[in-house]
Amino acid sequence: EVSFDPKEHQHLRYNPLRDTWVLVSAHRMKRPWAGQVEKPPEEHVPRHDPSNPLCPGNTRANGEVNPDYDSTFLFENDFPALQPDAPDPGSDQHPLFQSKAARGVCKVMCFHPWSDVTLPLMKKQEVVKVIDKWAELVEELGATYPWVQIFENKGAMMGCSNPHPHCQVWASNFLPNEPALSDRCQRAYYQKHGEQLLLQYARQEAEKKERVVVESSDWLAVVPYWATWPYQTLLLPRRHVLRINDLTTEERGGLADIMKRLLTKYDNLFEISFPYSMGWHGAPTGPSLKEDNSHWQLHAHYYPPLLRSATVKKFMVGYEMLAQEQRDLTPEQAAEKLRNLPEEHFKTRGE
Amino acid sequence: EVSFDPKEHQHLRYNPLRDTWVLVSAHRMKRPWAGQVEKPPEEHVPRHDPSNPLCPGNTRANGEVNPDYDSTFLFENDFPALQPDAPDPGSDQHPLFQSKAARGVCKVMCFHPWSDVTLPLMKKQEVVKVIDKWAELVEELGATYPWVQIFENKGAMMGCSNPHPHCQVWASNFLPNEPALSDRCQRAYYQKHGEQLLLQYARQEAEKKERVVVESSDWLAVVPYWATWPYQTLLLPRRHVLRINDLTTEERGGLADIMKRLLTKYDNLFEISFPYSMGWHGAPTGPSLKEDNSHWQLHAHYYPPLLRSATVKKFMVGYEMLAQEQRDLTPEQAAEKLRNLPEEHFKTRGE
Ligand SMILES: O=P(O)(O)O[C@H]1O[C@H](CO)[C@@H](O)[C@H](O)[C@H]1O
Ligand SMILES: O=P(O)(O)O[C@H]1O[C@H](CO)[C@@H](O)[C@H](O)[C@H]1O
Repeated sequence: EVSFDPKEHQHLRYNPLRDTWVLVSAHRMKRPWAGQVEKPPEEHVPRHDPSNPLCPGNTRANGEVNPDYDSTFLFENDFPALQPDAPDPGSDQHPLFQSKAARGVCKVMCFHPWSDVTLPLMKKQEVVKVIDKWAELVEELGATYPWVQIFENKGAMMGCSNPHPHCQVWASNFLPNEPALSDRCQRAYYQKHGEQLLLQYARQEAEKKERVVVESSDWLAVVPYWATWPYQTLLLPRRHVLRINDLTTEERGGLADIMKRLLTKYDNLFEISFPYSMGWHGAPTGPSLKEDNSHWQLHAHYYPPLLRSATVKKFMVGYEMLAQEQRDLTPEQAAEKLRNLPEEHFKTRGE
Repeated sequence: EVSFDPKEHQHLRYNPLRDTWVLVSAHRMKRPWAGQVEKPPEEHVPRHDPSNPLCPGNTRANGEVNPDYDSTFLFENDFPALQPDAPDPGSDQHPLFQSKAARGVCKVMCFHPWSDVTLPLMKKQEVVKVIDKWAELVEELGATYPWVQIFENKGAMMGCSNPHPHCQVWASNFLPNEPALSDRCQRAYYQKHGEQLLLQYARQEAEKKERVVVESSDWLAVVPYWATWPYQTLLLPRRHVLRINDLTTEERGGLADIMKRLLTKYDNLFEISFPYSMGWHGAPTGPSLKEDNSHWQLHAHYYPPLLRSATVKKFMVGYEMLAQEQRDLTPEQAAEKLRNLPEEHFKTRGE
């Protein structure tokens, strides 16, 4: 009888935040790769590009001129997927042809006046300003909208068309699929076990250590046990926190620190500006502000596409789209690799 | 009061096969694209490449020599994500660290001895042979395995590393997430409405016509009302059929015809060999063969990544990964475009 080795033997792992399973087949890393190779991220981004609509002082698509900002800068997305005033589609009553009104706002936030920096290369105090702005937006937009999605698409590989450091914030009059699912899962867990799913999880991971990437007294970043993307991470506070605007000043400082550490490791992995999509999930807002959301715990998901190198990504295609997500290295292997990387950024090393 | 126009006003549509919603923001197509551009598919693939492990007579990674096949050719994936004999991970009882045994087989099937053809360019009788082989595999592997996933990743953009026309078949000892969800949704619909979800849907679409791409007496291909990928289609028989091996000889001929018509239109859209991932969903097998699966209807999903042109794809990233899928043209617009394309392949036009 061969004994089970997660690195050698495929198996399924349960994702309690989505109530789904992932197929872990780590031995697949041995296959050679003859498929598509990506263009590595651009190396020399100019600090100020007169033709970049996100830079200070430049003119955007709609003719507006950006102020000469020196910190964060927020504006309305010039091509918003959500607008506040869309009319109602009316109600086609057939259960197979259901539509609903979708209203909201889409904002863009520049992190910094310079195009040649990213979060890990920014000063801690500059990152705190980004966090403060996130908190402000959740407070403001969340006063009425049930969901405020903060997300960052980083790198051309992730559909980002502008190298200037920025994120987006889309607020909607509906609770989207992913947070709705997470809400159901966290609620059911809390009802059954009497503790928050993610608080229990963070405690366990902090003890086990094998999936921890970086940690501090307030924060924890792990490659979750159920990660689907090769170097996916989950970042969360260790204290029970519902929403990003509930973080104390100290916790915001701690968050800036841990983000810089995590993202530095990401960049150091293949010595490039590491592409990813990331976003925050906190308790729903709007009408939910008046409800009990104790089952929720604030957290961020990082979904980076790369698998083997700076130019070979994981393709979530056929089997993944039609049947189930499959990963080619174990979460423990990914965490170990990231954990062992230096915390000094490869670009500033030796400076 | 402005009246609702799905092309101008974003709205949500319900996907009854997954119990999720998609955000349709068709006005987003107006934004300019300055982001990543893909390499167009290779145009001149040699008919026989002595170094291609999928060609007749060539040697594969494991040293095996392919026969000099002249139709379809089936072999075991040399780097399988599922193997028949993986040991059990044992049961870690903590609800946040659940794993399960995963066992199965992964096969590869070449469609044709030539590398320079694809399904739409193959003769009808050659496509019928592919369908017969699919049916045979579902019959054979489905005798014991609960799920047999037939899928094709086509094009480098979809992670396919070999231009030789082929698909994969992964059979597993578990029902993967996607078919499990589809099973739940189809069952609930059948119980509530007394008719199969997809049979009712096909009938309605055949009447409405606005989302139909191609149809015949036996088959229908539509851009579903809830499509997430820009040119996604759903292909299904009009008669109640549980699994691909239940198709009659006539229906297999009809399927070969409609596949050729649909895929010709796909290729004609941007005049390239159109990339996609596709796969079949039929009633579960193995132990389910003895159960009542009347709620199921056989169907294929086609998920093509392209949005604007042969080189600009839809990025399912930040908002889509963290919140909800969003599309940039209406399903009706996509269907109309495809429907209006010629049924003669651009490569053989004027021959
Ligand atoms: O098996 P292949 O073609 O080498 O690999 C491709 O399809 C698999 C199944 O969808 C994916 O898991 C891989 O990421 C993809 O590159
Ligand atoms: O809004 P952007 O950056 O132009 O667009 C990018 O992010 C959006 C939100 O995730 C996606 O819908 C787009 O496909 C992607 O290209």
